Amino acid sequence: MSSKITTKEAAERLIDSYDYFLFDCDGVIWTGSKLLPYVDETIALLKKKGKKVYFVTNNSTKSRDDYLTKFQGMGIHGIEKSEVFGSSYATAVHIDKILKLPKDKKVWVLGEKGIETELQERGYSTAGGADPDLNKAGHQPFDDSSPYLTELDSEVGCVVAGLAFNLSYLKLSVTLQYLQKGLPFIATNIDSTFPTHGKLLLGAGSIIESVAYAAGRQPDTVCGKPNQAMMDAIKAENPPLQSNPKRGLMVGDRLNTDMKFGRDGGLDTLLVLTGIESEQSVAGVAEKPTYYADKLGDLYQLTQQ
Amino acid sequence: MSSKITTKEAAERLIDSYDYFLFDCDGVIWTGSKLLPYVDETIALLKKKGKKVYFVTNNSTKSRDDYLTKFQGMGIHGIEKSEVFGSSYATAVHIDKILKLPKDKKVWVLGEKGIETELQERGYSTAGGADPDLNKAGHQPFDDSSPYLTELDSEVGCVVAGLAFNLSYLKLSVTLQYLQKGLPFIATNIDSTFPTHGKLLLGAGSIIESVAYAAGRQPDTVCGKPNQAMMDAIKAENPPLQSNPKRGLMVGDRLNTDMKFGRDGGLDTLLVLTGIESEQSVAGVAEKPTYYADKLGDLYQLTQQ
Repeated sequence: MSSKITTKEAAERLIDSYDYFLFDCDGVIWTGSKLLPYVDETIALLKKKGKKVYFVTNNSTKSRDDYLTKFQGMGIHGIEKSEVFGSSYATAVHIDKILKLPKDKKVWVLGEKGIETELQERGYSTAGGADPDLNKAGHQPFDDSSPYLTELDSEVGCVVAGLAFNLSYLKLSVTLQYLQKGLPFIATNIDSTFPTHGKLLLGAGSIIESVAYAAGRQPDTVCGKPNQAMMDAIKAENPPLQSNPKRGLMVGDRLNTDMKFGRDGGLDTLLVLTGIESEQSVAGVAEKPTYYADKLGDLYQLTQQ
Repeated sequence: MSSKITTKEAAERLIDSYDYFLFDCDGVIWTGSKLLPYVDETIALLKKKGKKVYFVTNNSTKSRDDYLTKFQGMGIHGIEKSEVFGSSYATAVHIDKILKLPKDKKVWVLGEKGIETELQERGYSTAGGADPDLNKAGHQPFDDSSPYLTELDSEVGCVVAGLAFNLSYLKLSVTLQYLQKGLPFIATNIDSTFPTHGKLLLGAGSIIESVAYAAGRQPDTVCGKPNQAMMDAIKAENPPLQSNPKRGLMVGDRLNTDMKFGRDGGLDTLLVLTGIESEQSVAGVAEKPTYYADKLGDLYQLTQQ
């Protein structure tokens, strides 16, 4: 049974029960470019009470530095780079530490600048991604003799795919050529949809599904939630959470990524209804979140009553 | 056991055995904009011998009239509109005759002009498709407040998806909005790849898979091969083929669409190796084509020896 947080007492009890608060961003902190109500105050309240906060997002379009800029632009100050874990960062760490791709190999990116920035911070060159020449070529009538298709870069040693706002048939088809070579295929995340302004747009998983279907192969690794890579990194820096995961609460808007991510890491979970899920979807699942609430800001609003 | 056509005798015997020759186009007649060798001569030879020929293609980017123009441009003259069956045409017929969509409803098209032309020939208005304003909007940095997303057209009563060279995140996301409304979802075809100039690019099926994954629903109907809609239309016009399908030979380059299409229709089959499949893929399948050949043009070349 999930309990819904609707009273001052429940909100205070919840806050007192945890030392570590992990937050998804899209659909929890903001939706698109709009900060959700009382989020700022909730984070300030938690920090005032000495809680550790982390932002764990599957949105790979931004690097950690981009997220800091976004937080500041929305008036949420004092967030540190070390508090931000994005799937673009997790992907770069995976390629470096787990895949151990040599630094003289390039990474072909189907995705946005955030992935490229995180890879470049770890010493990798990238191809594809937000390359303006490739974007421009992708906006021309499709030309199957484009050099992007006919002259593949032999230095590319790995393919990363994630959310790509600037996609084109050319970009997808070039990605397919590299996948056909059998290179490692890493997904930043596989969320099927991307919630913004009350709409569900195409998620990274739906873009990845396209090239995966064409190539006849699924990604070798998915770095975002519910994969535990980002959780492990947070735990490694916080031994008390490592030894007792029940001191942590994962807050998110998706049952199949955020809630699973928290549960798989041994944390309690809070589902907020400002993104993907509704009260009905909570009722319909076997594995319920520990709590749910209409919005994250209720933690602040209720305690002020 | 498949027999490979490698001798004059085998080629002559094959030609003498059938009255109806159905051809796939991409990978059989041409690859991209290049006519394959001796195709022209083979078609002329068959016609000279009084054979009926039909062109049955899953490529939905062109209308039947576009195909006639393409045949002429490649120097293949004398092809009639009634000899051409494309998945764009089959889709328009399906929406009109089977789905019985009222003519005052619009069709949202994720695809190219060919689908729109065939729908318009049957009296439907279309939205999306090759609309230059939508293409232009899709080439701008993605804007989630685009009117295409926020002001859905309430007259749209059906979604058609096929091969789209000019796709964009906006176009895919708008398609998703209409699919979320539960409208009928028709696929022109679901070929995973699109062979051109010796490369495999993204096929209609891979584009459709993207929006299907995001919407959590598969197409209600797939109109292209191996669906029998185009076969039924050809048979309806040719009673001898209707009553004895073994008088017909389906020629194609794909085991899972062309060869299945012919087999399901009761015809014999000839696989050519100028497209998707190789001699190894023939060896690897349980349901073999009746014959295979290196190329369609061998039928002409071998008989000239």
